[in-house]
Amino acid sequence: MLMIHNVNILTMNKEEENFNGFLTVEGNVFSEVKKGTPPQELIDQMDDVMDGNNKWLMPGLVNTHGHLGSSLLRGAGDDMPLMEWLEKVMWPNEGRFDKETVSIAAQVAMMEMIRSGTTTFLDMYHLHMDDMAELVLEKGMRAVLCRGMIGLSSEEEQEQKIQESVDLFHNYHGTGNGRVSVAMSPHAPYTCPPPFLQKVASAAVEHGMMIHTHLAETRGEVERHVKEYGKRPVAHLEELGIFNQPCLIAHGVHLNEDEIQILKKHHVAVSHNPISNLKLGSGIAPIPGMISAGLTIGIGTDSSASNNNLDMFEEMRMAALLHKGVHESPSVTNSEEILAMATHQGAKALRIKNVGKIEAGFKADFILIDAEQPHLTPANESTMQSHLVYSAKGSDVTDVFIDGIAQYSHRTLLKFDEEKILYQANHLAKNFV
Amino acid sequence: MLMIHNVNILTMNKEEENFNGFLTVEGNVFSEVKKGTPPQELIDQMDDVMDGNNKWLMPGLVNTHGHLGSSLLRGAGDDMPLMEWLEKVMWPNEGRFDKETVSIAAQVAMMEMIRSGTTTFLDMYHLHMDDMAELVLEKGMRAVLCRGMIGLSSEEEQEQKIQESVDLFHNYHGTGNGRVSVAMSPHAPYTCPPPFLQKVASAAVEHGMMIHTHLAETRGEVERHVKEYGKRPVAHLEELGIFNQPCLIAHGVHLNEDEIQILKKHHVAVSHNPISNLKLGSGIAPIPGMISAGLTIGIGTDSSASNNNLDMFEEMRMAALLHKGVHESPSVTNSEEILAMATHQGAKALRIKNVGKIEAGFKADFILIDAEQPHLTPANESTMQSHLVYSAKGSDVTDVFIDGIAQYSHRTLLKFDEEKILYQANHLAKNFV
Repeated sequence: MLMIHNVNILTMNKEEENFNGFLTVEGNVFSEVKKGTPPQELIDQMDDVMDGNNKWLMPGLVNTHGHLGSSLLRGAGDDMPLMEWLEKVMWPNEGRFDKETVSIAAQVAMMEMIRSGTTTFLDMYHLHMDDMAELVLEKGMRAVLCRGMIGLSSEEEQEQKIQESVDLFHNYHGTGNGRVSVAMSPHAPYTCPPPFLQKVASAAVEHGMMIHTHLAETRGEVERHVKEYGKRPVAHLEELGIFNQPCLIAHGVHLNEDEIQILKKHHVAVSHNPISNLKLGSGIAPIPGMISAGLTIGIGTDSSASNNNLDMFEEMRMAALLHKGVHESPSVTNSEEILAMATHQGAKALRIKNVGKIEAGFKADFILIDAEQPHLTPANESTMQSHLVYSAKGSDVTDVFIDGIAQYSHRTLLKFDEEKILYQANHLAKNFV
Repeated sequence: MLMIHNVNILTMNKEEENFNGFLTVEGNVFSEVKKGTPPQELIDQMDDVMDGNNKWLMPGLVNTHGHLGSSLLRGAGDDMPLMEWLEKVMWPNEGRFDKETVSIAAQVAMMEMIRSGTTTFLDMYHLHMDDMAELVLEKGMRAVLCRGMIGLSSEEEQEQKIQESVDLFHNYHGTGNGRVSVAMSPHAPYTCPPPFLQKVASAAVEHGMMIHTHLAETRGEVERHVKEYGKRPVAHLEELGIFNQPCLIAHGVHLNEDEIQILKKHHVAVSHNPISNLKLGSGIAPIPGMISAGLTIGIGTDSSASNNNLDMFEEMRMAALLHKGVHESPSVTNSEEILAMATHQGAKALRIKNVGKIEAGFKADFILIDAEQPHLTPANESTMQSHLVYSAKGSDVTDVFIDGIAQYSHRTLLKFDEEKILYQANHLAKNFV
């Protein structure tokens, strides 16, 4: 058993709040989380005891939307709108990605995520998802994996893509002690014609799979959808059965109030990706309206090619700041809500249970933060929550545990040969853009 | 003489662009900045030679608006609008600040700024500005210091405040080898009645001082100004003579096109503080309009009590991202423009000459960045500019030189006892909020 004591804990548990205390980890779950000093007889039972002096401890961050395989395109095609960027930069380059490129890109992304405190992520990608599942198993992260499907292809190819998703589900869903889950993932209404979406919905129902898709990311795609089908995409997806299974949509930038109510009715969760939406000029999602409607909201970075990093501290901060300014009201979001989105609400959006709080019985996914730094000063129990949202950086993370196992210790990655992977990444990147 | 070679240099010089090369520093200026490998006979003349392998070198960042003395109020009064926050949190606490509190707060801020690559800052504060000037001289930074003046007081007090500003100017302007300048600083039109602003303008003209003031930060303050004086604040300040001297305004969130033209006519520069404006719910400044009008724009963090950090990399990124989303157009800002605002355009806004470019004859204010990290991968000459704006963190800075002198080396502050100052800061902070 592991104990961490003498540490300021952000529990994300409303009744418990934040306190200086200790926790114990037994297997992959927290066994005790308590205020104050641990009794000596408990300390004596431990295999490992860590002093958390000058550290803050919080749940690992949950990144609810991304595309790890495209990490080597970071910095390619800045200042372009979504469709131009996809058609001129992303798709032509991705068309030339081989197995090694995708694997190295995914490892760069995983290293970046662990280093900045992310313990769980969702990955939607169309290449080598079996390898991705094996990487997640090997590297110890928690992930939802989606074989992204573009339906603009022959019926045979469509069937094949769905079959690959189903196979991925049967081969990997629940593996790694439950760390890996698999979802069905049509790319977006503008790349998936209605008959394909119906097939996807049926397959998801048949196999009991969650669905993840891009939705209402740009104004143009919504307008074109209305022009082509005579209805807005949310109503259309509802009609096509996409919301009959547990569903998570990414973006939701251009949603009106009626559409938010449709999502609410079907318990559809939203992944809010504010930085990617700004960078691509897509717009600003109506988050205060979604909060009022009671939607489950997680936070996501999208890929490092449209962000351009995977730092969930930055993404939290953007989610906390942006809507205050747009609505000229500093109370439309608050640090507690934003931290929930980045932890247990994000896990809920991914349909992962018992993740995102520091509480007995929850999965031991947690991070430690070095609180003794100028930008986190003054550091005390009352400023901790505010500083984690409004001041902290991913680089403040010193230690990361996932499913009870250390993956990053004293700022060192334990399962990656970082220098080698970065060298390979820089070498491979020369083949693209 | 110092040489740094084998380094990727972001010159911020339009003709030269970025290249792998070397530079030499003689006294407080760059003597040579060139592509390629330095000749051996030049290397032989050096006192110190640094290999910049895997590093990026760029001009030190220029933070054009802040209040260092209030750093210990970081995290106090989140999610409140500007006036409520000033009246309930800032002013009552600041009223109880003593000399030591202000000095420790300023040192925490300076440590944070140097650590994250800021070499020049503007400070507007109302307490102990002589001590601040001495600190700047001692710690080696470049700064514009302003004794912030609220004019809601007796005529005698008003005169005294102006006299303090003039004394600060005569005692410190141009000291520290030109590192310190002093400006005249009325707080804002809503705290400075017209007759006081006229006196301020006359004193600035008389002594040849630049003027710095908050302007058009919130919608409410502009509306109240129109109600009280029958005109918008920009036209009013023009009439009162505030723009007769070189002038820098902070915020400019609620400016219409006519007002932007008035600022342009008088060469008034703007400090864009996007994060503080979002956090306080003030709104979003019309930066694309200001860019089109050709205003000189710098970037500023405002104080860590309304940001809540002083990381200019984050502020650059916010300035680069925000307007793309608001205007649903990814081309309204670009990384080159934003880097200029954070370097030589910021220096121009502060009326500081020969700062903000890596160019022979410019002041040797520069920073080194560790480019061998997952979130800066792929790292090469063509991605450097993009990554510095869209991916980098303040914590990527490894070395900082100001006026030719190292102030931060291998991530260690050379002129601060960091542990002691943070301890004192945490101790003093218990007296407030």
